Amino acid sequence: QIADLVIYDRLSNYRLLDYAPSHCDLKFAGKEPASAGSNQELINEMLIKEARAGKTVVRLKGGDPFIFGRGGEELATLAKGKIPFQVVPGITAASGCAAYAGIPMTHRDKASAVALVTGHEDPAKENPAVDYDALAGFTGTLVFYMGLDRLGEIVSRLLSAGRDPVSPAAVISHGTLPSQQTVTATLAELPGAVE
Amino acid sequence: QIADLVIYDRLSNYRLLDYAPSHCDLKFAGKEPASAGSNQELINEMLIKEARAGKTVVRLKGGDPFIFGRGGEELATLAKGKIPFQVVPGITAASGCAAYAGIPMTHRDKASAVALVTGHEDPAKENPAVDYDALAGFTGTLVFYMGLDRLGEIVSRLLSAGRDPVSPAAVISHGTLPSQQTVTATLAELPGAVE
Repeated sequence: QIADLVIYDRLSNYRLLDYAPSHCDLKFAGKEPASAGSNQELINEMLIKEARAGKTVVRLKGGDPFIFGRGGEELATLAKGKIPFQVVPGITAASGCAAYAGIPMTHRDKASAVALVTGHEDPAKENPAVDYDALAGFTGTLVFYMGLDRLGEIVSRLLSAGRDPVSPAAVISHGTLPSQQTVTATLAELPGAVE
Repeated sequence: QIADLVIYDRLSNYRLLDYAPSHCDLKFAGKEPASAGSNQELINEMLIKEARAGKTVVRLKGGDPFIFGRGGEELATLAKGKIPFQVVPGITAASGCAAYAGIPMTHRDKASAVALVTGHEDPAKENPAVDYDALAGFTGTLVFYMGLDRLGEIVSRLLSAGRDPVSPAAVISHGTLPSQQTVTATLAELPGAVE
């Protein structure tokens, strides 16, 4: 409501833009997954430049900025540039999807922990950051973010690393939108299990 | 705003109660950790009874109902009683605390996963639900909820299970409140490391 500029993402809730005052500029950061690397630098530069020009800048994201939201990288940029900032937490996709699917992520008798994992990494890449052996042995619920494109590889890696094939599983697309779809099955029934 | 009854917890944001209409009853569920077990049954019974009496009931919690919020148990009760319900996701404590501490939980170059774990369980109990060996090998950030009382045991168990002693660590109390305190150190510098 006091912003001079709002820089928003593809996954931001556009309804929030209605709160911006009439003089406020709205810039779409157009952050598609494929081009995230180079685009991130442009966003970082814009944040610094506009703040130094005296503008109150809102960086609007979907979900929570500190869970796969690149918030850490943008804040590091601001801190380096000595730009004061404030972080507002958000509802991370796991919470939103679980609520609308009606599936709790922890349960007193079933799961005392939940792991939130990027599902975007190619499991076949050299020096992968995601350790599927450790995940297969994780006692609790696993949630993969943005994992739909790699569903088969994720399922296959989990099963070959020893995750229980009859683990209950859900695949969710269009999470939190009216078009959200939820498919439930056992892990071994999902695509990738038979590859 | 259309509720006839709001049942709220110790960790709910009391400011939200101001949105209740004037005819609405506000009941404090008084859910202290120590008595959570038996109290939960009373809450479940109240939800069913009041809904069957025709009331629109809001069950107000702090954080997210599906991440250590007992939402799963309350919904199972409602489903069994054929009471229609809707779940509204919330900002889980990890996101709130991280935002106000300025500590991202994931980072493109540092952590591709984050595990949210109950810190309330006695690690010495028989058949513990929390597997410290698996957690020590987890590639990513670990967040323990409500772990302050057991800080020493958690640190000690992680170190003896092989977690890197120079892992950066933060201990947060009064999370998301104006009185939030954040202490950062390496894992080996925290209480419990020298026990």
